[in-house]
Amino acid sequence: MKVKGHARRTIWPESDGVSVGVIDQTRLPHDFATLRLGTLAEAAHAIRSMQVRGAPLIGATAAYGLWLGLRADPTDAGLQQARTTLLTTRPTAVNLRWALDRAFAHLQPLPPAARAAAAAAFAAALCDEDVAINRGIGEAGLPLLRALAAKKPAGRPLNILTHCNAGWLATVDWGTATAPIYLAHDAGLPVHVWVDETRPRNQGASLTAWELLNHGVPHTVIVDNAGGHLMQHGEVDVVLVGTDRTTAHGDVCNKIGTYLKALAAHDNGVPFYAAVPAPSIDWTICDGVREIPIEERAAAEITRLTGRADDGRMTTITLTPEGSAAANPGFDVTPARLVTGLITERGVTPATAGGLRRLFPEKAPAP
Amino acid sequence: MKVKGHARRTIWPESDGVSVGVIDQTRLPHDFATLRLGTLAEAAHAIRSMQVRGAPLIGATAAYGLWLGLRADPTDAGLQQARTTLLTTRPTAVNLRWALDRAFAHLQPLPPAARAAAAAAFAAALCDEDVAINRGIGEAGLPLLRALAAKKPAGRPLNILTHCNAGWLATVDWGTATAPIYLAHDAGLPVHVWVDETRPRNQGASLTAWELLNHGVPHTVIVDNAGGHLMQHGEVDVVLVGTDRTTAHGDVCNKIGTYLKALAAHDNGVPFYAAVPAPSIDWTICDGVREIPIEERAAAEITRLTGRADDGRMTTITLTPEGSAAANPGFDVTPARLVTGLITERGVTPATAGGLRRLFPEKAPAP
Repeated sequence: MKVKGHARRTIWPESDGVSVGVIDQTRLPHDFATLRLGTLAEAAHAIRSMQVRGAPLIGATAAYGLWLGLRADPTDAGLQQARTTLLTTRPTAVNLRWALDRAFAHLQPLPPAARAAAAAAFAAALCDEDVAINRGIGEAGLPLLRALAAKKPAGRPLNILTHCNAGWLATVDWGTATAPIYLAHDAGLPVHVWVDETRPRNQGASLTAWELLNHGVPHTVIVDNAGGHLMQHGEVDVVLVGTDRTTAHGDVCNKIGTYLKALAAHDNGVPFYAAVPAPSIDWTICDGVREIPIEERAAAEITRLTGRADDGRMTTITLTPEGSAAANPGFDVTPARLVTGLITERGVTPATAGGLRRLFPEKAPAP
Repeated sequence: MKVKGHARRTIWPESDGVSVGVIDQTRLPHDFATLRLGTLAEAAHAIRSMQVRGAPLIGATAAYGLWLGLRADPTDAGLQQARTTLLTTRPTAVNLRWALDRAFAHLQPLPPAARAAAAAAFAAALCDEDVAINRGIGEAGLPLLRALAAKKPAGRPLNILTHCNAGWLATVDWGTATAPIYLAHDAGLPVHVWVDETRPRNQGASLTAWELLNHGVPHTVIVDNAGGHLMQHGEVDVVLVGTDRTTAHGDVCNKIGTYLKALAAHDNGVPFYAAVPAPSIDWTICDGVREIPIEERAAAEITRLTGRADDGRMTTITLTPEGSAAANPGFDVTPARLVTGLITERGVTPATAGGLRRLFPEKAPAP
């Protein structure tokens, strides 16, 4: 999507032929800066320090990280070490393991001299695949947004509420939940996005707002507490979120707080959609609330917060009294009964086992 | 309640006989500091700058502010000016107007020479009345907490979730939602409080956590997004919140985000109670969602946040990109259908017109 008028991806091979460029997302939304990753260690650091984040982008960075590692040491030992180094950067990131496993299976049989070039090609293909998936989600979701917009009085924008950052910054381009929004905006449909701040890491306020701003999509930041009130008063036409993991029965595990928005949408007759790339579907589980273990993250994400002080410096402040504990579950599960539909790259389906099976017959076991 | 082991109120006449003491709540939770208010202007400033906040405490401070004003000028003009000065500090605070109207009606007929002493007595009585109301809510709510605790396995604390600060810092003592909690804790019932951070002003993280910590009540701060997940997993036994305004039919208007917690409680079979002092009931309205105008507060409350930097200085940081708008509705309405019961100083009632009428027959018109 666009930054300062120029189309960009979140990760790209640099023209020097020996490094890969990324956006330093830790400096957003205040500074737009890019980084040049020239070694395996630099790629691992970018993932570990969350300079890059979002499941698809982490996977893409890891694939390029393998390439950087193999340029230095293409032996079996080098390949194994690069894989292990990258895997331990974010131990719970399913997409990271998935990308590395695929790359490893592809590269390991090759002669060492051929591995680096093959890794570069693999990483580029992985990125293009992600872009195609997201573009597919966008094209599947666009008619939904058009239909909802058609019900609005003339001249009134379609109000979309989103939570966290399921935007292009989390992927290679387009984003998942944002793909239909960008396509709608680019097609001239008047849209306005309510951006949930998304505590504790504030990915909505810092990343989603930034990317919508740069692409020119009208939006308003709200606290996570506000969505229910807005829905009660007809200010939200549709809720559109991403997913970190989707069960075979259509339960959606996404950033903590998503479930509360789904409840409010249900209570107010507002449609609630999740943008679901096929790789996020876990066909082995059915009941998300019971079966998905929820990562408990660091208390410091709640008790401390970083932003730009008035002197321009990035500054961390403490919010809670010294001595008060904090708990930080990172995700929650929205049961399928609260989900109007899942927008996948193959089309839209009700959030049901049967619906998902019809779209992905090769993946789902027969009932 | 206790601060550093000593029982305190939030406002008190100083022993010098010419000033009133308050806690500077803008410095919480990092510093405990008190202020001495010696003039009408200082009292007005304390309210305007939110050194004191919370409807009952604002009312009490305004009553003492009248006293300070009348000490300097007890004439009709002085009384009128003091009233106007105080009323404009927080134009939308219903309790402020209520306290000033009551005081004015009491003081205006008196001869000027008698007004200051009468104002001091009025303010002291208003404070005692608030303490009695909150203590009454505590005593009405305690049996509820005892009954819920009795259902828990032995040795497991009763987990109470609260939102915002309906604690003693918002009142003169005890708080409203916290009164049953403090009484339960003091009676030896094992309680643990999930404290919603409460964006955007973070009254939970900064004030509720601080007062529970100082009184020794076990608690854990969470982001506002987390409560639904905790309820899905049986980690919340009861939700207990305050109210800014309650309709004659039992709708509860409280800090933005309360409605989302009520939805989650309802979805998970968790009882949801509001602590309702009689002065918060607006007998003239029935349908809270339609009839209560919601204050739209400053966007800067969302885009900027103040806390203690690591160098010890209170520092304000910016969270959103320059150019992104923010919207900030301050309150939402929880429909009575989601409320298990209202805890008033006269006892507990279902959130219905009939229930409220039975408790307050002198206030409610016959159906």
